[in-house]
Amino acid sequence: MTEDALVIFTPSGKRGRVAKGTTVLAAARALGVDLDSVCGGRGICSKCQIAPGFGDFPKHGIHVSEDALSPVNAVEERYDRVRGLKPGRRLGCQACIQGDVLLDVPPESQVHRQVIRKSASERVMEMDPATRPFLITVAEPDMHEPSGDFQRLAEALEKQWNVSGLQADLEVLRELQPALRKGAWQVTAAVCDAGDGTAPRLVATFPGYREAPLFGLAIDLGSTTIAGHLVRLDDGSVLASSGLMNPQIRFGEDLMSRVSYAMMNPGGDREMTTAVRAALGDLAQALVTEAGVEAQAVVEAVIVCNPVMHHLLLGIDPVELGQAPFALATSAALNFPAREIGLAAIAPGARAYTLPLIAGHVGADCAAVALAEAPEARADLSLIVDVGTNAEILLGNNQRVLACSSPTGPAFEGAQISSGQRAAPGAIERIEIDPVTKEPRFRIIGNEHWSDDPAFGTPEITGICGSGIIEAVAEMRMAGILDASGLIGSAEQVGTERCVATGRTHEYLLHDGAPNGPRITVTQGDIRAIQLAKSALYAGARLLMDEMGVDHVDRVVLAGAFGAHISPKHAMVLGMIPDVPLSAVTSAGNAAGTGARMALCSRAARRQIEAQVHRITKVETAIEPRFQEHFVAANAIPHATDPFAQLRAIAPLPEVSFNLGGEGSGRRRRR
Amino acid sequence: MTEDALVIFTPSGKRGRVAKGTTVLAAARALGVDLDSVCGGRGICSKCQIAPGFGDFPKHGIHVSEDALSPVNAVEERYDRVRGLKPGRRLGCQACIQGDVLLDVPPESQVHRQVIRKSASERVMEMDPATRPFLITVAEPDMHEPSGDFQRLAEALEKQWNVSGLQADLEVLRELQPALRKGAWQVTAAVCDAGDGTAPRLVATFPGYREAPLFGLAIDLGSTTIAGHLVRLDDGSVLASSGLMNPQIRFGEDLMSRVSYAMMNPGGDREMTTAVRAALGDLAQALVTEAGVEAQAVVEAVIVCNPVMHHLLLGIDPVELGQAPFALATSAALNFPAREIGLAAIAPGARAYTLPLIAGHVGADCAAVALAEAPEARADLSLIVDVGTNAEILLGNNQRVLACSSPTGPAFEGAQISSGQRAAPGAIERIEIDPVTKEPRFRIIGNEHWSDDPAFGTPEITGICGSGIIEAVAEMRMAGILDASGLIGSAEQVGTERCVATGRTHEYLLHDGAPNGPRITVTQGDIRAIQLAKSALYAGARLLMDEMGVDHVDRVVLAGAFGAHISPKHAMVLGMIPDVPLSAVTSAGNAAGTGARMALCSRAARRQIEAQVHRITKVETAIEPRFQEHFVAANAIPHATDPFAQLRAIAPLPEVSFNLGGEGSGRRRRR
Repeated sequence: MTEDALVIFTPSGKRGRVAKGTTVLAAARALGVDLDSVCGGRGICSKCQIAPGFGDFPKHGIHVSEDALSPVNAVEERYDRVRGLKPGRRLGCQACIQGDVLLDVPPESQVHRQVIRKSASERVMEMDPATRPFLITVAEPDMHEPSGDFQRLAEALEKQWNVSGLQADLEVLRELQPALRKGAWQVTAAVCDAGDGTAPRLVATFPGYREAPLFGLAIDLGSTTIAGHLVRLDDGSVLASSGLMNPQIRFGEDLMSRVSYAMMNPGGDREMTTAVRAALGDLAQALVTEAGVEAQAVVEAVIVCNPVMHHLLLGIDPVELGQAPFALATSAALNFPAREIGLAAIAPGARAYTLPLIAGHVGADCAAVALAEAPEARADLSLIVDVGTNAEILLGNNQRVLACSSPTGPAFEGAQISSGQRAAPGAIERIEIDPVTKEPRFRIIGNEHWSDDPAFGTPEITGICGSGIIEAVAEMRMAGILDASGLIGSAEQVGTERCVATGRTHEYLLHDGAPNGPRITVTQGDIRAIQLAKSALYAGARLLMDEMGVDHVDRVVLAGAFGAHISPKHAMVLGMIPDVPLSAVTSAGNAAGTGARMALCSRAARRQIEAQVHRITKVETAIEPRFQEHFVAANAIPHATDPFAQLRAIAPLPEVSFNLGGEGSGRRRRR
Repeated sequence: MTEDALVIFTPSGKRGRVAKGTTVLAAARALGVDLDSVCGGRGICSKCQIAPGFGDFPKHGIHVSEDALSPVNAVEERYDRVRGLKPGRRLGCQACIQGDVLLDVPPESQVHRQVIRKSASERVMEMDPATRPFLITVAEPDMHEPSGDFQRLAEALEKQWNVSGLQADLEVLRELQPALRKGAWQVTAAVCDAGDGTAPRLVATFPGYREAPLFGLAIDLGSTTIAGHLVRLDDGSVLASSGLMNPQIRFGEDLMSRVSYAMMNPGGDREMTTAVRAALGDLAQALVTEAGVEAQAVVEAVIVCNPVMHHLLLGIDPVELGQAPFALATSAALNFPAREIGLAAIAPGARAYTLPLIAGHVGADCAAVALAEAPEARADLSLIVDVGTNAEILLGNNQRVLACSSPTGPAFEGAQISSGQRAAPGAIERIEIDPVTKEPRFRIIGNEHWSDDPAFGTPEITGICGSGIIEAVAEMRMAGILDASGLIGSAEQVGTERCVATGRTHEYLLHDGAPNGPRITVTQGDIRAIQLAKSALYAGARLLMDEMGVDHVDRVVLAGAFGAHISPKHAMVLGMIPDVPLSAVTSAGNAAGTGARMALCSRAARRQIEAQVHRITKVETAIEPRFQEHFVAANAIPHATDPFAQLRAIAPLPEVSFNLGGEGSGRRRRR
């Protein structure tokens, strides 16, 4: 008399014997197989679907007969009729094991399913969010055995899900009683188990069974822009993305001017804290509206930002970050109630997680880039540059990783540029200048045609965005409109009426404004702003290379909110990054945002970066004399020609140099 | 060569051998002796004082030579010169053990010193507060090894004090950097180790060594009044006490009318929450000002209250408490940031602790009374009555403890009484009525003379407080002014012009208002209000006695904010409490407040009551038919004479009964 049966689960390959009559879900739990369930086996959620295989499986050494599982029962029939069950699928909580069986767990039935992140490395990440839904049946109150509704919920969670020691904030307790009664003592509880040794926390309760997933926010809080994603916590997909300007800009465009504002104005830090928290609240609202989801189901937020933004967001005066030794108030990853930083309209107990900071000037945003790009996982030497108002720079391989931050200012984001603007429809994003005629053509965001194509039409052209200004300067240099020092030549010197004198300098007319919209030029001031920004970026990279003892890198990764839009060629012409073969330059898109999403979807990712930041060598640019040297040396625009001209077979033009009246030679020291 | 020495500590009797040269403080730690230190052995705090004994101690089997301790050193000399050291005392962190020695640890050098609570039982309590001060020297920031100031503080706490895993709220992190710099990297950290399995939390930081103790608030939040004590957390003494009216009164005088307000008005619960939190903030401010202490040094608050107040304070809609089964949202003890309930102006990370609730109508205030009075520790049967707007009643002994709550309304607190007022100067608090002449005499708060004493003078007489109205009604009954049903007789029936007709009923003129102030009377409405209140109280006690299967109790303890002021004799005449010998009636004062203080000073007390509430049998008066029966039966005022007349040798007067026009017999059913 055989009372048990062999069960093999794929793809895990886990196997074991269970008593006949055991449900597939119970067998999976007994064998440690990752099979999802939100309703706990009540036949409601359908998350535990499996696909049995029948016949011979020599590889697994098993023969599965047709009656290895119990027949489809009424619950499954009803589910199939009402919701539709894929062919060959069974509900794991209903199907009972009656004989030896091979069961495949499809990816969507795995809690810890693997998702492939869209990045250069295509790395695989396992879903392992801190906050998960649990359907719980709670005992009704009994006057003769009085106890709190919360205590009975916690007992039920322990009994039904083996999650013990549940805690709850006051804000969550407030919502509990109506939810329990509306759900007739059945609720879907969102429980955050941060996995950091703290007790599991009740984040939200939904009456009855909640069909829809839980959501999280991944927020990249930059000095100039704040970008956010609304992410499904079951499969990691992004449902909505939105961005807004950081309202702290009115207190100072760059980090140090905000620190100064806090130093000079009593209560100034609190003003900036209030402003950024309000913006976070607005961003969350915008994302929830765009995605059309229930705000109460947004149960987590991960925020990455630089140290000054970090301290201001947390309500800490950043004044110490304005002077050596740039002491952080706290450097570790933090986990706290999201409502404390302005995220109040989401789930009442939603948690916020901030990634660890690396150093006084190297923040959680850099940590997020390190998490997303993982240079420590590769043998070749990667230079990873996250371009923003502050540039985060990582250099490393599987031997050693270095990090620094460099104050590029907001020019790369289109700010402090005469015709600059945010990347939005109407903004010039791509530019080419004919090296012979000096005539430009360009493309604008929201229009797939070049401006010299009749199909371009007559759209409104509003300004130049960050990637556009980089291309403009590089193309002006390659067309001989700029000399190596960055000086714009006169109409006579360059040979085009597009070079227009304005006082003692010249500007290049990119677009005359016809038929509508503003006149768009690149001024000498714009060139200087870009030169300062790119010098800072380049100097930071060189400093890390010095520290590493190398004079070249194997690959360059361009990251940042607009990193995906920068043309590697133009960046190299400009001297933003060291020279490498064009094929070795890749774009990682918003790597900081990707790192935030990883930390949102995976507790393992949090533990990984929390450990990794201690292994990263920090280099402080602000006090390093060589940074200044590199900065000054990097002022020139090195390439008068396309460094990849051989790829396009364009002959280089002769080098030019312009004199600016009495200002002495426009030629500067070249690296 | 003997390298070690015998050390015996008294009063603990702990003994052991330590290497010669060991400091007394280190020896105490090694042997597990409770010797205080805030500065960690730096010779700053003087908390580690000990008194060595020299000579022969046959009882301990030790001879102590004069050179058993190292000579007084420079640190001790300086301390003695500047601050003064008691004769015979040494600083434990400076004195080194050089030979066999007997060391006495005086009470003030013990962390867990015992304090005797001033209550009937004079029970001893051990100081063991959750939040304690630690002097810490924190490593300065190093640009080349960047880490957060908080992380370095946490490391130092672990290294110097063996307290690991420190956490901090954002509000505390905000204060950390200025304190560290002001204290030149030495701070006194107030750390809360709740002892409930959660991580220790940084509550506040003070630059350098903080000489003064830390403080806590013990708050008794009643429906009508809120009373608070500011308590030293080193020795448990009370530095200031203050009270104010509960501002929720404007939403309803008793609990059920407030629950109704919340049910009838959307957002009504939030209004009441806001009101009571603001009052708590005001109370804290008043206590801090009265005691003249630094608000930032108030690091803990313990709050006791009934379930409706509890839920409203925590921001939970109390609507479920208005109907069976009276389900609590949460019943367990809670520990959360004090700022969340309006206590914002104290230490930034101050923690609040609420005692557990016993049942839907039996609150944390009753739990606090149970903690303070501990009926489970006695063999005799105690009836403990905490009189307030809601009465908390406990009945029990070392076999079993029962609890219930009874809705007495605010009459006992002077509310809903025509001339009623709070207990304040000018209020009548004691009354005697001559049974022959029916003339009253009284005493007012703030005047030690009776009103018929020429020394009484002509003070302003403003009204009657709670204890006064109880005495007035009881004296009126004993003087034959009231019949057993509670009806006031006419001037002719009683034989005094002080009985004045008002419509169809009469009132008794207690004071004619001369020479200044209002006319003060006891109306028929006042009598009815007191009858309802005392019937509810008595019925609750009877219900518990039924449940226990007894018809008498061994002792009665009167507690409550004004429990100390109630005359036991008058309470018994009135029928508030069951008859027991007068010597068996004691006053426990504000036992709920005492319980709150115990929980503030002792983590062990918290654990004790958290366990004890589960052992208390809860009786729900609201749905118990016998409660109604007892309530109706208890309406009469039983004693026409002083039940302790034998003690005073006063002859009883004949029983009277009055007819109220056409209303039928004034005589009601007697128990």
